[in-house]
Formats: sequence, C-alpha cells, structure tokens
Amino acid sequence: MRYLFLSGSLRKNSFNTKLLHLAAQHLHCAHSDIANLNELSIPLYSGDIEAVGIPEGVQKLAKCIEQAQALIIASPEYNYSISGVLKNAIDWISRVRPMPFRKKPILLLAASMGPIAGIRGLWQTRIPLEGLGNYVYPDMFSLGIAHEALNEQEFVNADDQKRFTSMLDGFTEFAKKLA
Amino acid sequence: MRYLFLSGSLRKNSFNTKLLHLAAQHLHCAHSDIANLNELSIPLYSGDIEAVGIPEGVQKLAKCIEQAQALIIASPEYNYSISGVLKNAIDWISRVRPMPFRKKPILLLAASMGPIAGIRGLWQTRIPLEGLGNYVYPDMFSLGIAHEALNEQEFVNADDQKRFTSMLDGFTEFAKKLA
Amino acid sequence: MRYLFLSGSLRKNSFNTKLLHLAAQHLHCAHSDIANLNELSIPLYSGDIEAVGIPEGVQKLAKCIEQAQALIIASPEYNYSISGVLKNAIDWISRVRPMPFRKKPILLLAASMGPIAGIRGLWQTRIPLEGLGNYVYPDMFSLGIAHEALNEQEFVNADDQKRFTSMLDGFTEFAKKLA
Amino acid sequence: MRYLFLSGSLRKNSFNTKLLHLAAQHLHCAHSDIANLNELSIPLYSGDIEAVGIPEGVQKLAKCIEQAQALIIASPEYNYSISGVLKNAIDWISRVRPMPFRKKPILLLAASMGPIAGIRGLWQTRIPLEGLGNYVYPDMFSLGIAHEALNEQEFVNADDQKRFTSMLDGFTEFAKKLA
Repeated sequence: MRYLFLSGSLRKNSFNTKLLHLAAQHLHCAHSDIANLNELSIPLYSGDIEAVGIPEGVQKLAKCIEQAQALIIASPEYNYSISGVLKNAIDWISRVRPMPFRKKPILLLAASMGPIAGIRGLWQTRIPLEGLGNYVYPDMFSLGIAHEALNEQEFVNADDQKRFTSMLDGFTEFAKKLA
Repeated sequence: MRYLFLSGSLRKNSFNTKLLHLAAQHLHCAHSDIANLNELSIPLYSGDIEAVGIPEGVQKLAKCIEQAQALIIASPEYNYSISGVLKNAIDWISRVRPMPFRKKPILLLAASMGPIAGIRGLWQTRIPLEGLGNYVYPDMFSLGIAHEALNEQEFVNADDQKRFTSMLDGFTEFAKKLA
Repeated sequence: MRYLFLSGSLRKNSFNTKLLHLAAQHLHCAHSDIANLNELSIPLYSGDIEAVGIPEGVQKLAKCIEQAQALIIASPEYNYSISGVLKNAIDWISRVRPMPFRKKPILLLAASMGPIAGIRGLWQTRIPLEGLGNYVYPDMFSLGIAHEALNEQEFVNADDQKRFTSMLDGFTEFAKKLA
Repeated sequence: MRYLFLSGSLRKNSFNTKLLHLAAQHLHCAHSDIANLNELSIPLYSGDIEAVGIPEGVQKLAKCIEQAQALIIASPEYNYSISGVLKNAIDWISRVRPMPFRKKPILLLAASMGPIAGIRGLWQTRIPLEGLGNYVYPDMFSLGIAHEALNEQEFVNADDQKRFTSMLDGFTEFAKKLA
C-alpha cells in the first residue's frame, strides 16, 4: 500500500504534522511520504498564474497524489472550517490534468489545542474531497488539547494511541478493498 | 454607509470582481473601496510567520475591515466549497487583535461560468464568517453562465440587473438597521 | 418584543425545552409562548396530505410564527445534524402561504448530554432557516453534559447562567434593531 | 448483491420513488426491496416513545437495513437541506441496537422539479449517514426538472438514462469491493 501524507498546517512544529509522523511510523512508511507544503511553495490560486502554467510545486504534489494508493490528511480547523492552506492546495490540484484527486481513499485527522478537537473543520474538508470523487473514510480522528496529549515521540494517553492505531488499521482495510 | 468590497478571486478579469465593481457603482462607492488581494500580497497562513509578526498586507486589510460598516464579498466556488484564497484571507484576519471581523453585516455574491452559479460555495463561505460573529445576510446573489450574463459594463439581462440591485438595496437596509 | 419559543425535542423532560423555559423566564415571557409540538400533532410531511389541506397543527404554528417578532429555537443534535422533528416542522411551515418564516430574527440553543454539546447540529439547523430568509443570530448557545449542568430550576454553574443571559440580551438587541 | 431502496418522500407519485423503481429495475431487484415508509408508519422521534419501546415500523426497517448489503436512497431537497421525513427515519434507526446503519455502502439520488436538482439537500444528507459510519458513494445523481425528464416508464432523455445507469454500475462495483 503506497500512502501519501498531507498536512493542512505550514507550522514547523504543527501537531497535525506530528500526527502524520505517528501515522507514517505505524504504517511503516518513509517520512519522505509526508508531503512538505512549505518546500513545494504553492502560490495562492489565481487563474492568471494558471494561464501561464501550473506551478512546479503543484505539479510535484499532483504526481505524488497520483502515485499514492491512499492519502492521510491531517489538518487544523480554522474558524470552524477547512484550513485555507489545505483548501488552496486542493483548488490547485483540481486544475491539473489528468486530475489525480479521484477515487483515492482518504483518511482525515485533526489535532487541536482546544477541546472540540478540530472535528467541525474536518466535516468541511470532506466536501471538496468528496466532490472531486474521492472515497473519504467515514470515521475521522480528532485529538483535542493536543499540546498535552502528544509528547515528542508519542501519545501520552494509551487510549488515544489505541483509538489512533485502530482507526489507521480500519482505514487500511478500507483502502485495500477499494484498491 | 461605509462599504468594503472583497473578492475571493485573484484573477484580473474575474467575474466576481466585476460584480463588486457593479455593486460599488450602484452604491456610489469609490473603486478604491474594493480591496485588492493581489496588491496586499497576503501569504499562505503559517503560525511561524505569525510568530514573527502579522504581515503588513493582512494588517492593511484588517484596518479596512475595521473601518467598514458593511462588507460585500464576491467569491467563486472552487470544488463545491469556499475559495482557498478567500479562506486564507479570513484565517489571517481572524488572528489580528482586536479582531475586526465581528458584528459586520456581510452580503455574499458569486459569479460562475457554470449553471449552478456558485451557490454551494457561498453556503460554505457563511460558516467561518458567521462563526466569527458576523451578520451574514440570508439572501445571496449568484449568477450562472457569467461569461454570457455580464458584458464589459453591465448585466446583459434586465432581470439579473433588477435581482442584483434589489438584493443590494435589501442588504443596505439590513446593514443600516444593525449599524 | 413578542417571542416564540420552539423545541426540536418532543421528550417531556427535554433539556432543550428546559432551556426554553429558562429563556422565557429571563425575557419575562409567558410559558404559553413555548410552542408545544406534541399538542400540535404535526404529521410527517407528505405532498399527498398537503394536497388535501395544510394540517391544523401546522396552521396554528404558522400563525404563532407570523405573530412573533423573534424566535428562540432549542434543539438536540441527532446524528451530527438537525433534529428530524424540527426539520419536519420547518418543511411544513415552508409550505404555508403567506410563508411566515421570513425575516425573523432567530436564536439557536442546544443542550446535550455529551461534551460536544450539540453545536454541530445547530450549524445544520441554520441552513434551512437562513435559506428561507431568516436572520439567524451568529452566536449560538450550547450546553454540554446538560444533565449535570441544569437542575430543576436553573443552571448549576454561574458561568453558564451568565453566558446564557448575555447571549439572550445580545440577541434581543439584534432582534430589536431588525424589527 | 442485496439492495435496499429508501425514499425520502412519502408522496405516492414521488419522482424520487420513481427513480428508485428505475434503479431496482436496472439492478434486477424486486420492487419489494423498496421500503415503503408510508406503510411502516414511523412516528416522529420522541425519547418518551423510545422509552416504551422502539416502534414496530422502525424495527422492521432496521431489519431490512441490516440484511441489505447496499442502500440506494432517493430524497427530495426541502429548504436547501435534508428531507425531515428521511432525517426522522435515520434518527430512529440510529437508536436500534445493534445499530444497523454502519459500514453500509450508500448511493444518494435526488429528483426535483427545479433546476438545481436537489443536490444541496444530498450534501446535507451525507452528514448523518457518514457520521454513523456508512460508506456514502462520492458521486451523487440528481435530476432537475424531473416532471419533464421522467415519463411513466423511463427517462425521456437518453443522456440522463446513461448517466443514471453508469452511476448505478459504478456504485455496484464500489459496494462489491466493500462487501
């Protein structure tokens, strides 16, 4: 199973990106499978830029998505909704031809320092991904009070760890069936 | 009544930005009241950038929003949802203190070259704006097949023109009451 | 200010209905201003029933809505979404002519025995109400762990009480401006 | 493959129910696989009724869902959102133990007499179904101006027919993989 991991946060010490590292570790993936949106330097979407040519960073990300058999996306909730950074990346990817964001099994994760844990943002994140034709896994993982629930290496709480790996395993089974 | 106009599209010849010009004209506003996101060069949101300081373009936009008594936002629908460009601007603005995006009457417009006319995107756009505490006008204006419905100067169709000005007038009344 | 209170729960000892009683008390309203959906015996919506005639209970509720200057709706979240009972009432009301559910200021409340407190359901409840043209107040009140947070007469916690009355007062000001 | 068909409309000559008959025909299913919500006489959800016992009609429907390997739901859009009738049925089903609405592949259809074709309602219908853990197919079928697009026996337009059968076939493949 070839996974791609994508974070909706550009912050270096992002809790969401940390969730992706923990997921990659559990799934025996290389850390290089975690797309680095900072390095790809994707601009804000503009039809005028597109008319000149799809930016190189977008093309690279599109190729990674195309080659992946399953995606795991972790994203913060900003203002009760999808992260603008993630939405901008999706908007660009949807303009690449052939459009790679179709029929991909996708798992959504969120970490948040608040108690509601980012789940409202994930519901808004489903919409463009499903609208494009992807198979977004119904269960979503969200972790509240993330600054206390995660330490450098792992989940502080065994229950969170168990909930996390059980969701990853359920998703992997789902993705294999749809492959 | 002091209006601010904001477009969710960076494209120079955007139909959405054109709607804002028509709105500004009807409301006797200066074209300078139309915020130019291209000139403000707002970066993609990152907590690391924020830690260094809110970017100047964000601060300028925040000041414009603070001074406005009503906002009119026109935005394309991208992938059944909010424009990433607009969401990114909202995400940044929500980090400015004092946060200016609160209790502002807001009217939403959308132009689209397709027949569904962008209305699904506007429903997703309501969420962060209302979540922040703004008064988003319930009626929303959407214009399908915009490349045929708009010419250089105006609406081709008198019915669209009437629907547009009647919505602007209804919104103005709403905004005045809430001022 | 003439209020109408509407509960999305039919349960006799509903925490949501209890919130309405507390709201009515704070706003010096009669308990008779709380619509009793049980007594109105509104059937499930069917175009075949409608063809014979709008049911009496629907007509009564429509008249109450028409006469109200502001509505306060408290509703449980069922399955991450709007209560079917409340949605069915809205669907019926939207068929009455003249349609009374337009330009009404509306405040949304939710009580829930869980920690997320019903807020996701309220976001879905906004959609039909705003789609019909009502002014739904942006702030929404939600009370988690309601079976511990409410006793027979009042909020157990002074902070909840304060949050509640301050939202009611903010809404009243909003409704008066829009009257 | 064992299908269950469910309509969000109680109207006898419902275009949505007609879509289900066309789907059943294409998939060589018996018309008895189309659940008849009128005959099941499911009441509006109330915790007080539930405390006495889950109504017989709900239990029957729950058993049908449990035995089905895939569900096809056709539902009108009421007020930009889910049909209250359908939501009420989902709310009841979610209270049955063991809860049968989990890990079921589901296809959503909508017919509407308007041009927008019910698609906004389907987006709201995804939420409770996915929240309960079902696999809702990303593509959704919607048919606008349904009173002209359907005659007694079939689609008037060959393109609609093709779009319909191709979506049914795509969904069947999806459901088989997940079985």
